[in-house]
Amino acid sequence: MTEVHVHGPHATVHAPGLEDEVAVEEPLEIRVDGRPLAVTMRTPGHDDELALGFLYGEGLIDGVRPAEPTLEANTVEVTGPLTRDPAARSFYTSSSCGVCGKGAMEEVAVHSEAAAPGPTLARELLAALPDRLRQPTFERTGGLHATGLFTAEGALVCVREDVGRHNAMDKVVGWALREGHLPLHPRLLCVSGRLSFELVQKAAVAGAPVLIGVGAPTSLAVRLAADRGLTLCGFARAGRVNVYTGAERVR
Amino acid sequence: MTEVHVHGPHATVHAPGLEDEVAVEEPLEIRVDGRPLAVTMRTPGHDDELALGFLYGEGLIDGVRPAEPTLEANTVEVTGPLTRDPAARSFYTSSSCGVCGKGAMEEVAVHSEAAAPGPTLARELLAALPDRLRQPTFERTGGLHATGLFTAEGALVCVREDVGRHNAMDKVVGWALREGHLPLHPRLLCVSGRLSFELVQKAAVAGAPVLIGVGAPTSLAVRLAADRGLTLCGFARAGRVNVYTGAERVR
Repeated sequence: MTEVHVHGPHATVHAPGLEDEVAVEEPLEIRVDGRPLAVTMRTPGHDDELALGFLYGEGLIDGVRPAEPTLEANTVEVTGPLTRDPAARSFYTSSSCGVCGKGAMEEVAVHSEAAAPGPTLARELLAALPDRLRQPTFERTGGLHATGLFTAEGALVCVREDVGRHNAMDKVVGWALREGHLPLHPRLLCVSGRLSFELVQKAAVAGAPVLIGVGAPTSLAVRLAADRGLTLCGFARAGRVNVYTGAERVR
Repeated sequence: MTEVHVHGPHATVHAPGLEDEVAVEEPLEIRVDGRPLAVTMRTPGHDDELALGFLYGEGLIDGVRPAEPTLEANTVEVTGPLTRDPAARSFYTSSSCGVCGKGAMEEVAVHSEAAAPGPTLARELLAALPDRLRQPTFERTGGLHATGLFTAEGALVCVREDVGRHNAMDKVVGWALREGHLPLHPRLLCVSGRLSFELVQKAAVAGAPVLIGVGAPTSLAVRLAADRGLTLCGFARAGRVNVYTGAERVR
């Protein structure tokens, strides 16, 4: 009775009395030197950036690697070397939180440094950033998260969308890695949703001094941002913003 | 400069010029017979239900098991036996999607059966369910997902909140398992957010005939619901609802 036709990042659902556009969600297997390393549910597109950003955020690579996506097979093949053996760490399952493969908080602390000082930003600019997050597929489907990279002056540099909030940020980080923009300092990251621990961690590893979200932060997101010297801003909407950590960057 | 004080499922953030309540996010290690099996980032509370619901959804248990949470250590100890060896399956990392530990779609298909026919429901009832989802901690923090279990008449039976959308559903399923309410048929599940593949899978494994969400479904969520004979409803808000699959249950 119900049919789903996929066209790139969006799909059309035909059901009795309903025709609607939805976001595409499909598994992607990330392979390194032919060996399966991770599976993530993602929106197809920029799969190479997703793989590179994921591996960078996990501390598995420290520079660009060749990454060849095969859309039909939902795989991306990355050529090593890795900076460490992924098998040396326990791979647990995880939930939507995304502490993928980490057995303890201590494991998390190893691969991110304190953010460098600056830039100094106007509160009004921070509050305005979510409105500048262009989301072409969200507008069709209402079903995608977005991450945007902005200059300290508030100009949009790169935006990526995905059904998984962490994937959207991985794609932006993977893009920045390939383009030679890491560490992200003094640029700003802005996400369309809530601020979890994992998003703060990815931002910290990528060297972003500021992370802004439209939604609420969690307790651990605030703690990690405070520990890393990151400026964490939540509830950025309607011209207002809450500054949870790193207020010295906000005037 | 910023301090975070935890009080149960919520925490108070004290920052320069800001005092705010946020949702607590902390890791939980699920152990079976002393062996670490999974780590999830969750909001503390109902950890035993979370562990049982997670294991049931993964097809690792088929009935109640003893589960002893230790809040201070963020662990929950489950006593086996498991219905299969978890090590027999590859444990990949995952993203917010939550195909935790699954290497391929085929793996997913094994442990859920087609939903039984009925009940038949008024469209107005489905559209009204999200308003009946009580979310005490969300109201304080704006940062939690919720899953509610309802009777076919629309009465709320159980509601659970969590920073992880999958955790909230795991907690409800774990509660139902312990209370002898599985399979969930003819009851309804309602979630406060978007409808991912993983949420449909958990609902299908628990035997729920109907899953309603406030947000958008993904392409794979629609496909899995169609395959399992589940009624999948999205964008349930302001008196309206989209019925993506299983329209025969809606009058």
